[in-house]
Amino acid sequence: MMKINLNADLGESFGAWKMGEDDALLQVVRSANIACGFHAGDPLVMRNTVRMALAAGVSLGAHPAYPDLQGFGRRPMKMAPAELEAAVIYQLGALAGIAAAEGGRLSHVKPHGALSNQACEDAELAATVVRAVRAFDRELILLAPALSELHAVGERAGLRVAAEIFADRAYTDAATLAARTQPGAVIHDHDEIIAHVLRMLDAGGIVAQSGKVMKTVMHSVCVHGDTPGAVQSARRLAETLAAKGWELVGLPEMGE
Amino acid sequence: MMKINLNADLGESFGAWKMGEDDALLQVVRSANIACGFHAGDPLVMRNTVRMALAAGVSLGAHPAYPDLQGFGRRPMKMAPAELEAAVIYQLGALAGIAAAEGGRLSHVKPHGALSNQACEDAELAATVVRAVRAFDRELILLAPALSELHAVGERAGLRVAAEIFADRAYTDAATLAARTQPGAVIHDHDEIIAHVLRMLDAGGIVAQSGKVMKTVMHSVCVHGDTPGAVQSARRLAETLAAKGWELVGLPEMGE
Amino acid sequence: MMKINLNADLGESFGAWKMGEDDALLQVVRSANIACGFHAGDPLVMRNTVRMALAAGVSLGAHPAYPDLQGFGRRPMKMAPAELEAAVIYQLGALAGIAAAEGGRLSHVKPHGALSNQACEDAELAATVVRAVRAFDRELILLAPALSELHAVGERAGLRVAAEIFADRAYTDAATLAARTQPGAVIHDHDEIIAHVLRMLDAGGIVAQSGKVMKTVMHSVCVHGDTPGAVQSARRLAETLAAKGWELVGLPEMGE
Amino acid sequence: MMKINLNADLGESFGAWKMGEDDALLQVVRSANIACGFHAGDPLVMRNTVRMALAAGVSLGAHPAYPDLQGFGRRPMKMAPAELEAAVIYQLGALAGIAAAEGGRLSHVKPHGALSNQACEDAELAATVVRAVRAFDRELILLAPALSELHAVGERAGLRVAAEIFADRAYTDAATLAARTQPGAVIHDHDEIIAHVLRMLDAGGIVAQSGKVMKTVMHSVCVHGDTPGAVQSARRLAETLAAKGWELVGLPEMGE
Repeated sequence: MMKINLNADLGESFGAWKMGEDDALLQVVRSANIACGFHAGDPLVMRNTVRMALAAGVSLGAHPAYPDLQGFGRRPMKMAPAELEAAVIYQLGALAGIAAAEGGRLSHVKPHGALSNQACEDAELAATVVRAVRAFDRELILLAPALSELHAVGERAGLRVAAEIFADRAYTDAATLAARTQPGAVIHDHDEIIAHVLRMLDAGGIVAQSGKVMKTVMHSVCVHGDTPGAVQSARRLAETLAAKGWELVGLPEMGE
Repeated sequence: MMKINLNADLGESFGAWKMGEDDALLQVVRSANIACGFHAGDPLVMRNTVRMALAAGVSLGAHPAYPDLQGFGRRPMKMAPAELEAAVIYQLGALAGIAAAEGGRLSHVKPHGALSNQACEDAELAATVVRAVRAFDRELILLAPALSELHAVGERAGLRVAAEIFADRAYTDAATLAARTQPGAVIHDHDEIIAHVLRMLDAGGIVAQSGKVMKTVMHSVCVHGDTPGAVQSARRLAETLAAKGWELVGLPEMGE
Repeated sequence: MMKINLNADLGESFGAWKMGEDDALLQVVRSANIACGFHAGDPLVMRNTVRMALAAGVSLGAHPAYPDLQGFGRRPMKMAPAELEAAVIYQLGALAGIAAAEGGRLSHVKPHGALSNQACEDAELAATVVRAVRAFDRELILLAPALSELHAVGERAGLRVAAEIFADRAYTDAATLAARTQPGAVIHDHDEIIAHVLRMLDAGGIVAQSGKVMKTVMHSVCVHGDTPGAVQSARRLAETLAAKGWELVGLPEMGE
Repeated sequence: MMKINLNADLGESFGAWKMGEDDALLQVVRSANIACGFHAGDPLVMRNTVRMALAAGVSLGAHPAYPDLQGFGRRPMKMAPAELEAAVIYQLGALAGIAAAEGGRLSHVKPHGALSNQACEDAELAATVVRAVRAFDRELILLAPALSELHAVGERAGLRVAAEIFADRAYTDAATLAARTQPGAVIHDHDEIIAHVLRMLDAGGIVAQSGKVMKTVMHSVCVHGDTPGAVQSARRLAETLAAKGWELVGLPEMGE
């Protein structure tokens, strides 16, 4: 049986503000990328999310970001490498501490927002993130976009790296996400989302808007839960994958 | 040979702002209470402080606080117990993560500022702090003021608790610190500081301004490094203690 | 024709997080208390809220709070008077600046959350808030709970003070809000809310749960927009008041 | 008599952390650029700085920045134009409010750190800053580096713009500051600083490290107060300028 992982960004509420339908999404995905308080999440949100994820048998990942609550970690920023490295370790430690308090352990790390976008294109920045992960715990899996600099740098540094594709985003011929300002960059139709994922899994690689196929391993599919209907879309994708013979597993069970 | 520990609050710089003479103080104390980013410290300051403390052979402690950078954690505040518990775990985890990245481990926890002051008098608040420490790692030593509620609650909960006295603060007959607004509450003269500490160690308990002695174990003496001459005062205290036959050790070596 | 004002707390979104149905509520109330970035709101949210309020012909008020985003300004806190005074002036200035950029002016100030609750009982804290308002602009109307210390202190200091009652909260015999933990403290039923308000307006004073009437001027009724059905409830209240012959006006038009 | 202004960045303490020798520097400069709480400063620091500046007869300016306390506003960042525009207005309003509480008024605005650096090269970003200033108060003087995009954009938009040169920074042939990583980029020697400023004033333009002269009006010289000896250096510069027949005036007195 072929294995695949579904992951989602969770725990993105903050204080009195709620975001996402985490409980519903935790019934669908197998891995949770949990905000660490820098772009979203606060200690109590983190603890509640960890508790729910553990109850749902979903593997725990850290979702570190730039320090930017107001911008939700989406503002490109330039931090000195030593500052960024320490900031990522801080976030990994904070979430790991909360996981420990709930009897759990982190299995993976997935950078968030602008930090991820920039690290996917900038090898030096990717190296800073990778150094942070390695310094904290070299057993952690780095969850990185397939064919990105971040993926390549992580692998060269000896980390176990899981390659991720996005269910609802169109790709360019350079295997990067089409800019949100381009028509069709974000796929809204549930059937199209499913077709897009199946096409890539069948082709054994990223399929661009042009039809171009770029071969790559693919360990995980990222789904979203912050838009209306998103959870339902994710559930249908999971059911379709299962019906097609894919076993949905946590990241640690994905092997190499 | 009798053993005693000296501790100090360190890593209280933030970004571009410097505070304290940490390198000098690390040559004097045996245990460091390191700010965790909520009242002071930032990830890079924390990492640099951990590195210096490890190089100096000083045991690492977390110094968690209320989320209050502008008020330096000195503003009394009322957080819901679940929020506070998660906030303390978050800080412990963050510092532990940075310690791990430097090959170190936390040995103790000492609450900071208003959180400490309130937990020394409010058993319910103390219980929240103690629950956080236990949830995170029940091997951690809780460093708490001698004869405080925080000390009593920690011990009843089964934590290893180290009792602390303050080198430069006068005590009331209730074994609490004299209010800073009272004359003589803060001791500035170096000779008096030394005499104050020796008097308490000789008496086997806290000696109030009135002369009243309140028997207690005493594991650690808190010294400060943020005022002019403070490091010199701490160094003289350490030398005097050594000359009087006290062995200065880390908190983990203090036994019960 | 009798005049009454309806006010609501608005602009409580923050960054990516949305809260409240501000556009709908702005069609109902005549005065908006706009968050100033300390407990909620950010500069862009503030600007959009000011713009919408001006378009709706709703008078602009500042809703200053303790610096506490994560706790939504609901955590009791103790700031030094000089710090709090400056913090309130800062928030008034920030919102006034944004209002000026949109061609508007502030008409009033209403403290938020824990700051308001504490200032309603603590005359010294109330005096600090009042000093801040007077220092910034002594023409501003202070919107304060009827019969509160804040109201009394503001009036004694020569501010124009508008007395507020709460549509959906039950009162004690001391004219304070019944604690949220008490049964019936928060009124959810729309008919009851309307009856509660009419009873107080008819009686010319606050009517406690016990039936006790405490005479007071009443200039404004506070309604909420952050719970399901809240806007609808507020709209029905406004319609009922209009049908009973009340003219709904902005705070500046309420006279003395 | 020829007129020139000296300006400095002030009010950059934060909470318990002190920075700079503001009182001493206020005896030297004629215009103060006061931090507005986003990169440094807090409401109380701002109020104390305004009070001291007014007492010293120094004209008040806002020193708005990116929201980045930990990075002291020095981290390049990319905010959406509408967010940045609102953030600048917010800061202008906050400081203006505090100035009003002290009976003062803002005379000018000078962007700080990375915001300034980026706006000096990026006309679109400069336009966003300029829009914010104009929306808030079109009478404010924009203090901008001579020959920068920010200067040009401000002037084209109809703002009164004062051109600034830096006393202790070397210039490239493009009239930009030499990168801090270049040898000689920061001038430390007091005599050299004075010679550098006199050379530019005499030449009627910026003098690059190469000797190249780029003609420009120059209204103000920026001095610093955050390094040892800096105040003394600034005082000597002021004395030398006075001895050479320059009248030191506030920005509003600089004319066009």
